[in-house]
Amino acid sequence: MDEFNLDKPREECGVLGVWSPEPVDVAGLLHLGLFALQHRGQEAAGIVVSDGKEVRLEKDLGLVSQVFTPERLAKLQLEGARLGIGHVRYSTTGSNLRFNAQPLTVRSSKGILAIAHNGNFVNALEIRQRLLSEGAVFQTTGDTEVMINLIARYSQLSLVEATARAMRELKGGFSITLMNRQTLLAFRDANGVRPLVIGRLENGGYVFASEPVVFPLIGAQFVRDVRPGELVWVSTETGELESRQVLEPAPTPCAFEWIYFARSDATLDGIDVHAARIRLGEELAREAPVEADVVVPVPDSGIGAAIGYSRASGIPFDYGLYKNPYAGRTFIQPTQEARALKVKLKLAATSAVRGKRVVLVDDSIVRGTTSGRIVRMLKEAGAREVHVRISSPPIRYPCYYGIDTAARKQLIAATHSVEEIRAYIGADSLAFLSEPGVKRAIGGPVCLACFNGLYPAGQPDGELEKLALEDT
Amino acid sequence: MDEFNLDKPREECGVLGVWSPEPVDVAGLLHLGLFALQHRGQEAAGIVVSDGKEVRLEKDLGLVSQVFTPERLAKLQLEGARLGIGHVRYSTTGSNLRFNAQPLTVRSSKGILAIAHNGNFVNALEIRQRLLSEGAVFQTTGDTEVMINLIARYSQLSLVEATARAMRELKGGFSITLMNRQTLLAFRDANGVRPLVIGRLENGGYVFASEPVVFPLIGAQFVRDVRPGELVWVSTETGELESRQVLEPAPTPCAFEWIYFARSDATLDGIDVHAARIRLGEELAREAPVEADVVVPVPDSGIGAAIGYSRASGIPFDYGLYKNPYAGRTFIQPTQEARALKVKLKLAATSAVRGKRVVLVDDSIVRGTTSGRIVRMLKEAGAREVHVRISSPPIRYPCYYGIDTAARKQLIAATHSVEEIRAYIGADSLAFLSEPGVKRAIGGPVCLACFNGLYPAGQPDGELEKLALEDT
Amino acid sequence: MDEFNLDKPREECGVLGVWSPEPVDVAGLLHLGLFALQHRGQEAAGIVVSDGKEVRLEKDLGLVSQVFTPERLAKLQLEGARLGIGHVRYSTTGSNLRFNAQPLTVRSSKGILAIAHNGNFVNALEIRQRLLSEGAVFQTTGDTEVMINLIARYSQLSLVEATARAMRELKGGFSITLMNRQTLLAFRDANGVRPLVIGRLENGGYVFASEPVVFPLIGAQFVRDVRPGELVWVSTETGELESRQVLEPAPTPCAFEWIYFARSDATLDGIDVHAARIRLGEELAREAPVEADVVVPVPDSGIGAAIGYSRASGIPFDYGLYKNPYAGRTFIQPTQEARALKVKLKLAATSAVRGKRVVLVDDSIVRGTTSGRIVRMLKEAGAREVHVRISSPPIRYPCYYGIDTAARKQLIAATHSVEEIRAYIGADSLAFLSEPGVKRAIGGPVCLACFNGLYPAGQPDGELEKLALEDT
Amino acid sequence: MDEFNLDKPREECGVLGVWSPEPVDVAGLLHLGLFALQHRGQEAAGIVVSDGKEVRLEKDLGLVSQVFTPERLAKLQLEGARLGIGHVRYSTTGSNLRFNAQPLTVRSSKGILAIAHNGNFVNALEIRQRLLSEGAVFQTTGDTEVMINLIARYSQLSLVEATARAMRELKGGFSITLMNRQTLLAFRDANGVRPLVIGRLENGGYVFASEPVVFPLIGAQFVRDVRPGELVWVSTETGELESRQVLEPAPTPCAFEWIYFARSDATLDGIDVHAARIRLGEELAREAPVEADVVVPVPDSGIGAAIGYSRASGIPFDYGLYKNPYAGRTFIQPTQEARALKVKLKLAATSAVRGKRVVLVDDSIVRGTTSGRIVRMLKEAGAREVHVRISSPPIRYPCYYGIDTAARKQLIAATHSVEEIRAYIGADSLAFLSEPGVKRAIGGPVCLACFNGLYPAGQPDGELEKLALEDT
Ligand SMILES: Nc1ncnc2c1ncn2[C@@H]1O[C@H](COP(=O)(O)OP(=O)(O)O)[C@@H](O)[C@H]1O
Ligand SMILES: Nc1ncnc2c1ncn2[C@@H]1O[C@H](COP(=O)(O)OP(=O)(O)O)[C@@H](O)[C@H]1O
Ligand SMILES: Nc1ncnc2c1ncn2[C@@H]1O[C@H](COP(=O)(O)OP(=O)(O)O)[C@@H](O)[C@H]1O
Ligand SMILES: Nc1ncnc2c1ncn2[C@@H]1O[C@H](COP(=O)(O)OP(=O)(O)O)[C@@H](O)[C@H]1O
Ligand code: SF4
Ligand code: SF4
Ligand code: SF4
Ligand code: SF4
Ligand SMILES: [Mg+2]
Ligand SMILES: [Mg+2]
Ligand SMILES: [Mg+2]
Ligand SMILES: [Mg+2]
Repeated sequence: MDEFNLDKPREECGVLGVWSPEPVDVAGLLHLGLFALQHRGQEAAGIVVSDGKEVRLEKDLGLVSQVFTPERLAKLQLEGARLGIGHVRYSTTGSNLRFNAQPLTVRSSKGILAIAHNGNFVNALEIRQRLLSEGAVFQTTGDTEVMINLIARYSQLSLVEATARAMRELKGGFSITLMNRQTLLAFRDANGVRPLVIGRLENGGYVFASEPVVFPLIGAQFVRDVRPGELVWVSTETGELESRQVLEPAPTPCAFEWIYFARSDATLDGIDVHAARIRLGEELAREAPVEADVVVPVPDSGIGAAIGYSRASGIPFDYGLYKNPYAGRTFIQPTQEARALKVKLKLAATSAVRGKRVVLVDDSIVRGTTSGRIVRMLKEAGAREVHVRISSPPIRYPCYYGIDTAARKQLIAATHSVEEIRAYIGADSLAFLSEPGVKRAIGGPVCLACFNGLYPAGQPDGELEKLALEDT
Repeated sequence: MDEFNLDKPREECGVLGVWSPEPVDVAGLLHLGLFALQHRGQEAAGIVVSDGKEVRLEKDLGLVSQVFTPERLAKLQLEGARLGIGHVRYSTTGSNLRFNAQPLTVRSSKGILAIAHNGNFVNALEIRQRLLSEGAVFQTTGDTEVMINLIARYSQLSLVEATARAMRELKGGFSITLMNRQTLLAFRDANGVRPLVIGRLENGGYVFASEPVVFPLIGAQFVRDVRPGELVWVSTETGELESRQVLEPAPTPCAFEWIYFARSDATLDGIDVHAARIRLGEELAREAPVEADVVVPVPDSGIGAAIGYSRASGIPFDYGLYKNPYAGRTFIQPTQEARALKVKLKLAATSAVRGKRVVLVDDSIVRGTTSGRIVRMLKEAGAREVHVRISSPPIRYPCYYGIDTAARKQLIAATHSVEEIRAYIGADSLAFLSEPGVKRAIGGPVCLACFNGLYPAGQPDGELEKLALEDT
Repeated sequence: MDEFNLDKPREECGVLGVWSPEPVDVAGLLHLGLFALQHRGQEAAGIVVSDGKEVRLEKDLGLVSQVFTPERLAKLQLEGARLGIGHVRYSTTGSNLRFNAQPLTVRSSKGILAIAHNGNFVNALEIRQRLLSEGAVFQTTGDTEVMINLIARYSQLSLVEATARAMRELKGGFSITLMNRQTLLAFRDANGVRPLVIGRLENGGYVFASEPVVFPLIGAQFVRDVRPGELVWVSTETGELESRQVLEPAPTPCAFEWIYFARSDATLDGIDVHAARIRLGEELAREAPVEADVVVPVPDSGIGAAIGYSRASGIPFDYGLYKNPYAGRTFIQPTQEARALKVKLKLAATSAVRGKRVVLVDDSIVRGTTSGRIVRMLKEAGAREVHVRISSPPIRYPCYYGIDTAARKQLIAATHSVEEIRAYIGADSLAFLSEPGVKRAIGGPVCLACFNGLYPAGQPDGELEKLALEDT
Repeated sequence: MDEFNLDKPREECGVLGVWSPEPVDVAGLLHLGLFALQHRGQEAAGIVVSDGKEVRLEKDLGLVSQVFTPERLAKLQLEGARLGIGHVRYSTTGSNLRFNAQPLTVRSSKGILAIAHNGNFVNALEIRQRLLSEGAVFQTTGDTEVMINLIARYSQLSLVEATARAMRELKGGFSITLMNRQTLLAFRDANGVRPLVIGRLENGGYVFASEPVVFPLIGAQFVRDVRPGELVWVSTETGELESRQVLEPAPTPCAFEWIYFARSDATLDGIDVHAARIRLGEELAREAPVEADVVVPVPDSGIGAAIGYSRASGIPFDYGLYKNPYAGRTFIQPTQEARALKVKLKLAATSAVRGKRVVLVDDSIVRGTTSGRIVRMLKEAGAREVHVRISSPPIRYPCYYGIDTAARKQLIAATHSVEEIRAYIGADSLAFLSEPGVKRAIGGPVCLACFNGLYPAGQPDGELEKLALEDT
């Protein structure tokens, strides 16, 4: 496997697009918006803007605040800027993926195109092979380049037609914003796996974003979610929103967005995230009650479910774990002992657990090592019992739609029973929320494939994937 | 006023010291320890280590994780290292204060001395003038250099004697760790205004630290607090802790440590911080009850008091404000509008407040602008009423003992009544905890000078300060 | 014109390739080699290596010494590395061209390809248009991507065949090194405008490089120049050098390489650069003699011609201009006055010119402003007369083969007579070497197009270029 | 030895001072001036400016162009700036000496003082001990802090009087610029070992600098050298230059300034550097003639002497060694082989030496390793014979006056005869210029202590130095 393969095929991201009827500080709006989407991707950030003629791009590895220095933002200042797209990218790989940051910009038969992409295509490899054999070249191994090449091949079609055609060819779970010098488009896969919402600027312009949390920051109002299988764009003539239902909608949005990934102040597909997390905790209390003195969240992602658990059980909520806000990229000697330290650097038990029977609430268990260390920490701080409650089912399968749930062999629940996990993490009891419990709490049809292996939007051809690793 | 005056006279910091009977990775221990004290100072960090002969220093502006790169830590690796001190420094000033980072190291008649300092001397200027007239030179305007010069002047005395002598001359609120090539010392002002604790390493060595939160990280056990007016050191002969009660103790530790500054997992002078914050919230609920639907903290510092308020009042606790963990140093155009944005970048209302009568709990109000913006944010998100409850009294006076409570004219409570502040921040009601309430909640004698102007450890001579600004 | 157009169409570069029969430190060899070619490109540097399976790339803006930090070199360490290519890039544009640094790597029907390129294609735009209409996408506006797409289109041909086919389609002046996971190729345009040489490693491996100056550094022996129109590669079976004369050779190597661009210790196409520069100076002395006391070079590029002038004229050579070796990227306020300063920061008159009649020898005049400032500097330092002698003809036309001779309107000789230039630079006399003089001194057929407008390797279609600026 | 001792006691530097009767861009003038003095110190640079009230300082490790970014220069912009000093610092040590960069600024009984220093005091340690025992503390081990403490002790005297008093106490070779908020002073040791010159700005202001090469850059005229033992300052009342001959002058300026250190366009103590270097080469040709075909300098420092040798011998001068201007801080694996590479990275033989008997001229031999590698390089390039001629005597003793001639045991001539050195470097013959030859060429009384061990300005007390290393 070479450097180009380091490009992880599965990654969570945030996408954004802005279109204004009159010149505005597009780069400034995108910058603020990306900042609100920062939780969806910490590895790289990028912005493309255009005034209808010139196109400017700045992107790099790093947080939004690191990439967009005053100098970089100044370079994006186009007097007559009217549209642009932005991207934040998540990746767990350590390698230098600078050249894979998004948006991706290309020159094509349709002029300059820029694209920002969240999610994955399950048939990207097949289409890539076809394009390669037709003479195409690729500079990355990512799906995004496949999409853009596909659109460019339809050189006789308009951008909207070519995009609709490409949507029909690519399967999977994804949300995308796309632009040329004048037009802004956005679309969502037929299952609506990844979120995408529409907002309206005060001046009548439009915003497309992964989550509605960007709107308050840039003075936009929420309009509606993009529908599964829908392609939307802003008409360059009328300035109005146009829409085409390219694919039959079969909505199964990703349950993990409500469980863990989305911001708690977001509302996705009509369902409020914070409220859903509280309901997840309430369901969990009903499904897996326990006698205890205090409910303690693993901060910050476990807070909503912990409040729900406390409410439904009547056991008082308390802050039993201090979270060091500076726990980030400290250099620690990479020894075994040091890895144990990482949890201690991030979390510390407060007096709230001393002498108590503790219900520890978290959103999910991936490898289980962190959970184990927290349980030990609470016990060392004097907790009498620690009952771990997880507001989602055991993760047993990979996600092919853009969320990195870690390699299968690292997923503790893929190879261990709940009782084995309990023993491993040293808890007095352990319970996961059931799939029906998740459905009840979220309250709509959802993808649960990483829990049950049933992939609503298809899954990659294993043979092809193996071939790809060997590389033509 | 020149660059040297940019050195803010009041600043919060964290200090640390480690002494081991045998060679250990002193730099590694100090590095971890400073990381746990990061909340006490984000502007600069520094470490000095010694093996009894060689002394090495690394310090710079930045967070602990930025200053201590692998390269820098490698430079601090002394084979036989047995003692060292560390420092984190807080400062609100924007200027380049690189040369003022601590520890400060000097060569003196007593060999090399290194010092790390938290707090302030109220009579530093007087002593500085005296030393200047005797021919001393100073490279900073800070108090630390005054202390070290004072010790050096007693060239005929031992280090312990000279330090005790210096303790008698300097008034104020401070905690200090000090070392030469062999000996580690630590001391605390007569009022014990700033915290300082003693821990013991597994190998029998000693640790002195601003808060006990460093101990779990480095495998140390809490021994006791350093007493007000006490000088402690580790005997180089016996390796045992030695102590001298240099000054009559008159304990009035800083109330603000429990209200806001210390980590919630700390216990200072026998009083648990998290528990104290819950009691502060409970007192507040008793003193200032209100009919409401939900208690919402301003995260993170308001959480403890909000839980207390919820418990005492019976009104449910909920997470009504999402805190963006990436809200740090993003570059925003410094316009008026932009300043308003900063709060929106950091906080966003969740669905928990929609249609609700909200009790918003925070630890303190400084200028009131943040509070006003949060109140507005909650109302825009659908809160019917917002009742602000503050778990400390109005801040009306400057702190001369090392906490930057902002200039007097910026303190809204110094010039406005509670009703005026309420109107300014747009709350439906506003209440501060009373001084007796604070005392009851903390449960011991405390400094409350920034609330009531009664300075237990003295206050600087105003005339002298004015002269100093003009500079000799 | 947008950002992508900032990609300057004409630029000088250095290329390199290494192939070894057994694993060696390919990255180390390329690193040293690029260092020796640094004068050919200071804006960016890059290295690609492969062990036959994995391919690793590191490239960035900056000097070789800035790009290749120990960390970056470590990333290029492939245990079994056996081949690789390298590139240094020259550019006068100030924009962020990070994504245009070379080598360029793509995945294609032929697997991974990497290419490093010096020079330009005159018909790149035509071919680009054709490829675009066939559905290709381009991420840069550079010629290199055109070449690589062309090769990839011949998906049915072997790499050698496809490259030969591409060579036949592209016109202009260029030298290229190209590799896939196993094979290293190199080729030169039919006129051999840009230099390219072959060397042999001690272990039997091969090196292709822009100039032979890399060989002593990496322990290689010079073998021969690549012939104009020749394609060479190392057989993966025999490890021997293979060659195909793809195009009829019509040698007219760039005269500017001997006049100014190449290193003085290089020998290109059998002609020694230092010796050629001395002969250029001797010819100049014969064509344009003058009564004077001292011959002074503009360091460093004028030294060879000055020595020649001194020898042929008998006038003593002296060092009349000190060159500050630190004159680089100092920040000077960009005022008019400041631009004048730049020459003073770089050069200063020594006592050698005081009271003397000076012959000032330089290699070329581009805009004439520098020359003017040097003449003034010498006069201020007491030179009685300054006679400027230039060892090349007036530059009147653009170069389409990879050397940035500045835009036509900036070329002082394009719009002014020699007498006008003399007056402009304030010299007592001025003479340029004649075209026949250049030919005699170099002693072979050469391109002189930037002097006489006769382009031996063709010239771009003006209409197409205009269209391109408007962008499809 | 600890970090503080890493501070090398001997180092070459450049000093600068500017005083203007009216507000000017003092920082801009100092910045340009330091740039011209860059050859005197590449490790650190600093500037202090004042408007009579405020004092601003910026200094850091690095070249002038690295330290003085636009941001840093902006910070030094004081509306009414009228005076300032600057410093460049040379050091061969690799450690982080950031805190030792100059100018050094202190607050003292005389207000703020800033000092920039070139050279060394031979009795610094004695005085330091005295000050320590009086209670002084030092933050560096450098001489500069000793000087400033000494001045500060005379708290009852005016700045001029106190400085004069300090001059009388400190022995050695040094040049210093010194300022408080209003006054600029400069002085030179009694032997005038280190250079110091006076220039006049167009507006009537004054400039003090290590070499006159700064004057053309900042529009100043050379006035005269500061006399050995003279203290000069600009009267704050009249704006005129004041002078006091504090010490009896005994002029023995450093011969090495003319041999190697100073810029070739400088004139020091009335003697032109370039002309002196040519005379050194002429003397060398007379003392050590040889039959040969070409005279080749080791660029750049050997050029002057090579021209002189060529003139006096009649053997043609040629450029036999190309010098790579980018040879700087490239990272090379630190192996034995690699060290050999360093010379190859920097120098390469041109065709000028092929088949020739070469006279290789350099200014000095320190360790001899570089010379040896150059001789081999020339032979490999085809030189038939290589006769090395050095335009100074063998260096056998350390310099105590500020030039780092390397530790005694590294000086090849300290332990080897000329014939042994010849054999070591592989030359066909080797000759050094004699001491009388140096004196004749320079034409005035000079220090030659590093050649003959006779120290005109005294030498440190060896016993004290040993004690210091053990540190009190
Ligand atoms: N896709 C994901 N990417 C990153 N973090 C996640 C993801 N899913 C869950 N998490 C977080 O990881 C934590 C799971 O902890 P745990 O199961 O102990 O795993 P680990 O051993 O990897 O730390 C949860 O607190 C959750 O917040
Ligand atoms: N000494 C201090 N330094 C920094 N932050 C503080 C300090 N004291 C209190 N705070 C924080 O400042 C907030 C006070 O907010 P507010 O009164 O609205 O002030 P401001 O207008 O300055 O933002 C509290 O939430 C508290 O966490
Ligand atoms: N293609 C080129 N790129 C960069 N420098 C060049 C090039 N050709 C010549 N030079 C250098 O530019 C100098 C020309 O100086 P001059 O004619 O005064 O031009 P300018 O006014 O642009 O400085 C020559 O000394 C030569 O070394
Ligand atoms: N004090 C000095 N600091 C730095 N370089 C010097 C000094 N004195 C002489 N040089 C340079 O060092 C070179 C001496 O070379 P050489 O004797 O071979 O020493 P080395 O073996 O250390 O390289 C001379 O070319 C001269 O330019
Ligand atoms: S597999 Fe899991 S993470 Fe992926 S989309 Fe479905 S629910 Fe979400
Ligand atoms: S004045 Fe206030 S902040 Fe300062 S020590 Fe006293 S209580 Fe603490
Ligand atoms: S046009 Fe000039 S610079 Fe270009 S290749 Fe020909 S001779 Fe060289
Ligand atoms: S000892 Fe040598 S280097 Fe030092 S001042 Fe004297 S001549 Fe100069
Ligand atoms: Mg979590
Ligand atoms: Mg707060
Ligand atoms: Mg030149
Ligand atoms: Mg030299």
